[in-house]
Amino acid sequence: MRISPTALLDFATAIYAAAGMPEDDARLVADTLVQADLWGHQSHGMLRLPWYLARLKAGVCTAVATPKLLVDAGGVAVIDGGDAMGQVLTDFAMKDAIRRAKSHGIAAVALRNSNHFGTALYYTLQAARADCVAFLSTNASPAMAPWGGRKKTVGTNPWSWAAPAGRLAPLVLDIANTGVARGKIYLAKQKGETIPPGWAIDAEGRPTIDPAAAIDGVILPMAGHKGYAIATVMDMLSGVLTGSLFGGAVGGPYQTERRSGAGQMMIVLDIAAFQPPAEFGARMERLIGELKSVPLAEGYDEILYPGELEARNEAANRRDGLLLPDDTLSDLATAGREMGIAARWG
Amino acid sequence: MRISPTALLDFATAIYAAAGMPEDDARLVADTLVQADLWGHQSHGMLRLPWYLARLKAGVCTAVATPKLLVDAGGVAVIDGGDAMGQVLTDFAMKDAIRRAKSHGIAAVALRNSNHFGTALYYTLQAARADCVAFLSTNASPAMAPWGGRKKTVGTNPWSWAAPAGRLAPLVLDIANTGVARGKIYLAKQKGETIPPGWAIDAEGRPTIDPAAAIDGVILPMAGHKGYAIATVMDMLSGVLTGSLFGGAVGGPYQTERRSGAGQMMIVLDIAAFQPPAEFGARMERLIGELKSVPLAEGYDEILYPGELEARNEAANRRDGLLLPDDTLSDLATAGREMGIAARWG
Repeated sequence: MRISPTALLDFATAIYAAAGMPEDDARLVADTLVQADLWGHQSHGMLRLPWYLARLKAGVCTAVATPKLLVDAGGVAVIDGGDAMGQVLTDFAMKDAIRRAKSHGIAAVALRNSNHFGTALYYTLQAARADCVAFLSTNASPAMAPWGGRKKTVGTNPWSWAAPAGRLAPLVLDIANTGVARGKIYLAKQKGETIPPGWAIDAEGRPTIDPAAAIDGVILPMAGHKGYAIATVMDMLSGVLTGSLFGGAVGGPYQTERRSGAGQMMIVLDIAAFQPPAEFGARMERLIGELKSVPLAEGYDEILYPGELEARNEAANRRDGLLLPDDTLSDLATAGREMGIAARWG
Repeated sequence: MRISPTALLDFATAIYAAAGMPEDDARLVADTLVQADLWGHQSHGMLRLPWYLARLKAGVCTAVATPKLLVDAGGVAVIDGGDAMGQVLTDFAMKDAIRRAKSHGIAAVALRNSNHFGTALYYTLQAARADCVAFLSTNASPAMAPWGGRKKTVGTNPWSWAAPAGRLAPLVLDIANTGVARGKIYLAKQKGETIPPGWAIDAEGRPTIDPAAAIDGVILPMAGHKGYAIATVMDMLSGVLTGSLFGGAVGGPYQTERRSGAGQMMIVLDIAAFQPPAEFGARMERLIGELKSVPLAEGYDEILYPGELEARNEAANRRDGLLLPDDTLSDLATAGREMGIAARWG
C-alpha cells in the first residue's frame, strides 16, 4: 500500500501536537520524518516516530522549545536548546546561521543541550536553497569503540555538507562515520533481515550478521581508523566546542530514561561573499556534468553525484506515494491509538 | 644513517633558494618537507623535494609569491595565488584566516590558483596552537574515478581539522579520500614493495598490487561511495567556491608541463568566541582521556587519539634523527648536484 506523504505528515503532526508540542514545531518534526522517507532514507523516516514520542512522554525531551542565545556576536552564536526536540532546535539554529552568514559572509552557530535531529541534510539543504554552502555536525550516543578498543564510547556523529548546483538538485553529503548508519541495523532487525559481514562485532568482539547482536555489540567505523578519527573530530565540534555533552556521556534516541545532551555545530558560507551565485551554479553544473560523463565501470548503468539519488527518490515518492514496511505501519497505528489519533491512510 | 632534521632543513632551503625562491619562503617549504618526515609521513617528506624543484625549474610554478587579495571583507577573504608554491600561499592564507577569526570569531579564506601544499596538518596545527579550531581542504589532480566510473576525474582532495587539547598534543585529522594516499603508492614504488590488494585498480580496471600499475590506473576511494562523495564536496569547496580549477582540470605535483590550478579553502573558528579556551582544553583532555582508557581489542597495545602518533614520532625523530630511504637520499644528492648545493649529512 502506497501512502500519501501528506497523510503521513498530518498524522505525525497530530501525534506530536498531542504530546504537547506547539503545532508549528510538531509539523516541522513530522516533516523531517516524512522527508527522510521521501529521500529513501527509511532508517530515519516514520520508523522513528514512536522513539521521539516515547522520549517526549517520558519527559526527558522538552516538548516546548525555548532556545536561549548565550553568545550573539555577529558571525558567531551559541544557543542552549534546553533539551527540546533536536529537529526544532537545529532548524532554528540553521536559520539563524543563514541570516548571520548573509550579514557577515560566514557564520558558525553552536547548539548545546539539544537532541537527535533526524537527517542532517534536512538542514544543510535549507542553506543550499538560500545560495549558501553549509556544514552541520552532530554527536550521538556511543556506537563505536575507539580504534583498538572494544567498548562503545564514540558516536556515529553524522555530518553533512550541502551546496546549490545551478539548475541541478543541490550537491549533498550526509554520512555517519560508522561503516553503516545505526538506523540501518534497526531497519534490518525490523524487517527480519541479516546484515552484511563487516558492519559490526558483537558484545564479545566477534563478527556478526545478526542485527540484534550488532545492536548489543559494537559497530565498526567506515574506512577503519579514518572513520574513528573523523567521528572524534565531529565530537570535538559538536560536543566539546558547543559546550554540550561529549564522548560516552551522550544519550541516544532509543533511550527514554535520560536526557540526550547531544550538540550540533553548523557553519554557513554565503556564496555571494566569494563569487556571484550564478557563476558558482554554472561551475557546479560543469563539475557535475564532467563526473556524470565518465565512462562506466563494469556493473554500473549510470554515475550519480552526491544528492542526486535523494532528489530522484523524492520526485518518484511524491508522485507514487510512500511504501513503508509493515512493522513501521503497525508501530504507527499503535502510537496513534496511544495518543488518540486515527491513522487515515488505510 | 640517521640524519639531523636541521641539516635537511638547511639543504632543502638552499635548494629552493637556488631555484629562485626568497630565503624565508624557501625555508618554509623546506620546513614543511622535514616536518612531514618528523611526523612519520615520509610520503609527503623530503621524498618530494625534487618534484617541487622540477616544477619551479620548468616555470609552471612561480618562485616568487605575490598573493593578491581579491576579496577582503571582515571574516571572508579570497586570495589569488598566481601559481606560486602552495606551501607559501597556504601558510599566508592560514595566518590571514587566524587573524580574521581573532577579530570576527570565525573566518573563511579561499585560495585560488595555488599549488600542491604538502600536508594539510602543517597549516591547521598553526591555528590549533593559536587557540583556534581549523578546517582546511584542497583539491588535487585526478586520482580516482567517480563511483561507478573508470576514468580518473576526482582528486584525493585531502582535508584536515585540528584543535588544541589542553596540555596534550593537538587533536589532528589529515586524510585523503582515497583508500590510501597517492604518495604512499609512490613510496612503495620507490622502496620496491608491492601494495595491499584493495588500494587500486589498473588502467584496464583490474585489481593490482603493483604500485607502477596502480599509478597508471585508478586508486579506489575510502569507504566506497562515501569517499567519492566526500572528495566531490572537497572539490566544491576548494575548486568551485574559491574560483580555482576543479575536477579533471587540476594539474598534479608530478607533472612539469603545466600549471596546477589547485585551490584551497580554510575555515578558522576562534575558540574564545565560543567558550574560554582553558575550559575547552580541559574538556578536550577529558574526551581524550575517556578514549584512551577504553578496554583494548585483541591485537592492540594502546588506543591513540588522532594526532597522537604524529606528536610521538616527531619527539623520537627530533631526538634520534631521521631515517630516509636510500632512494630518497640518492634523489636528494642528485638535486643537490643539479643546483650546486652540497649534501652535508654524509
